Amino acid sequence: MSLLEQTIGSIKKTLNQEAFNAAKDRLLNQAKPPGSLGIMEEISARLAAIKGTTDVHLTNKRIVTCAGDHGVTQEGVSLFPAEVTPQMVLNFAAQGASVNIIGRHAGAVVKAADLGVNYDFDPALPIFHKKIRHGTANFTKEPAMTREEAILSIEAGIEIVAELDDETPVDLLGTGDMGIGNTTPSSAIIAAFSGIPVEKLTGRGTGVDDAGLANKIAAIQKGLDLHQPDPSDPIDILSKVGGLEIGGLAGLVLGAAARGIPVICDGLISTAGALIACELAPAAKQYLFASHKSVEIGHKYMHDRLGLDPLIDLKFRLGEGTGAAVCMELLDLSTRILADIKTFEEMGITNAK
Amino acid sequence: MSLLEQTIGSIKKTLNQEAFNAAKDRLLNQAKPPGSLGIMEEISARLAAIKGTTDVHLTNKRIVTCAGDHGVTQEGVSLFPAEVTPQMVLNFAAQGASVNIIGRHAGAVVKAADLGVNYDFDPALPIFHKKIRHGTANFTKEPAMTREEAILSIEAGIEIVAELDDETPVDLLGTGDMGIGNTTPSSAIIAAFSGIPVEKLTGRGTGVDDAGLANKIAAIQKGLDLHQPDPSDPIDILSKVGGLEIGGLAGLVLGAAARGIPVICDGLISTAGALIACELAPAAKQYLFASHKSVEIGHKYMHDRLGLDPLIDLKFRLGEGTGAAVCMELLDLSTRILADIKTFEEMGITNAK
Repeated sequence: MSLLEQTIGSIKKTLNQEAFNAAKDRLLNQAKPPGSLGIMEEISARLAAIKGTTDVHLTNKRIVTCAGDHGVTQEGVSLFPAEVTPQMVLNFAAQGASVNIIGRHAGAVVKAADLGVNYDFDPALPIFHKKIRHGTANFTKEPAMTREEAILSIEAGIEIVAELDDETPVDLLGTGDMGIGNTTPSSAIIAAFSGIPVEKLTGRGTGVDDAGLANKIAAIQKGLDLHQPDPSDPIDILSKVGGLEIGGLAGLVLGAAARGIPVICDGLISTAGALIACELAPAAKQYLFASHKSVEIGHKYMHDRLGLDPLIDLKFRLGEGTGAAVCMELLDLSTRILADIKTFEEMGITNAK
Repeated sequence: MSLLEQTIGSIKKTLNQEAFNAAKDRLLNQAKPPGSLGIMEEISARLAAIKGTTDVHLTNKRIVTCAGDHGVTQEGVSLFPAEVTPQMVLNFAAQGASVNIIGRHAGAVVKAADLGVNYDFDPALPIFHKKIRHGTANFTKEPAMTREEAILSIEAGIEIVAELDDETPVDLLGTGDMGIGNTTPSSAIIAAFSGIPVEKLTGRGTGVDDAGLANKIAAIQKGLDLHQPDPSDPIDILSKVGGLEIGGLAGLVLGAAARGIPVICDGLISTAGALIACELAPAAKQYLFASHKSVEIGHKYMHDRLGLDPLIDLKFRLGEGTGAAVCMELLDLSTRILADIKTFEEMGITNAK
């Protein structure tokens, strides 16, 4: 059995119902109107069910920022040149990029992963070295990658979780992306799964103008028309119009779910990866939290398909794991709400009439 | 000149434009697509303008939870008995209530203030002792308080900020409330200012049923019909259909604005106080941040009138300062985003084409 099959097979079909019920009970008896902390209460109960206790501590928080390059940038789909991908990976390693700053604030350790950057990094660079190939092919002309490479990219993500978790057990994993041009394959992926017209779910990425947007939509449509990815086969979609870092991101979600680690996905690209993961293994969804709602319009369709509500809407459109990092603090807080707010009984207070 | 007049007079009409421009410049040159951290960038620039620097540190964070009782609870407008107000104040003092837990997570010190609780607290209890009277009168029968008491309640809030800030300069102030029945005067206040029909902006508070909601709407309507508060006179509105803690909350906003302290308001009741403050002194709005969007429908109308967008929508309906506490972490984070994310130049990265 392959690592991918083995990982999918080891994801539990249900969470710990006893811990979930204990959480719900406690929340109802705390000295506040029932349900008055809204979504934070729901999150805390799900985390309790994942961890099997009402006293969850998300101590070891990790963010993995998967990077890859995209042949489709030859079509001029992005405002930034492809050389920015390796430059940003170097910056993640130097801990100076946006996700590093926000991750630090959230108490999370950020590490980048090279799944398919078109650059040869020094093997000593403190990143996960998982390069499958030097960027995808231009999917308007040929498949982004082979089926085998797609599987390898997912398995690389699974391996990363294993390496992190074996080193120090991971309590919460955040996913993030870097890859100039990667909103294009991400929009292509949700279009391929959903059949929703490309123009409805394609946004401006880092900020292309009207002509740039039209060009991007045309490129995605050309790729879909040329390769006809099978909507019932996530690997087929990933290989034909996806990205290497998107495969890695899918692997992070599968690897986390298989190890019982809650995982919070970031923006459009991370959620494209999460979508591939959950189409391969629907049980992975139990471990998955949506962080923010991106400005990118395709994001909403991904959340709809995953049945997840993003926690915040701060008009981010950056990626890297920045939205996931912001929301880590909220997940953390939810555990304190469940464990630390006293019940009416513990406080000796009159309950509702 | 009274303390209130003096405070209003000392609020600056404009913020530091130089620091604001420096912040905007820096945000545009950071190694990320311009504006890609959305609302966090806007917040960071406003904080820079308030503090006069692009390297803002919100070290000393304080939350003041103003408490008061309400005669209108005699009309059965709340699910909880009025005795819960003093019980919760004791719990705030014991640091075990929801706002204490969330405040602790945000690194904020929480202190309650008695503006008008119908209970005599031990003078040694670690709260602000600012009782104006033992709860308001039932506004369906007589004005909630006198005009003089309304002014005293606002001035008490101003004094609290002075006491806190004189002890250790406050970098960020959060407001919160406790007072069984206090969504009723809060809805009455926004109804009086806006003229919007009472049934459109009255919610279920801690959870009254349909009959309870109809009863609450009727009580508010009765108070407005009986006293005809003058929409151009915030003190008139506060005295006739308001609350003592709501006056205190208005005072917190005015006191903070006068001292150049950013202030983040919580849910429906805190925002009712902020509304009174900003109707008295529109310049106070420059220092005011809306935290969360409450489940209470009146909250939206208050934000509309204040021209503020709440940062998060986590379906809270608790008060106490819980939403303000959650958002303190976001304000904090925004300052790190502005100061710590490197510019393209600082990182030696290729900029956009």
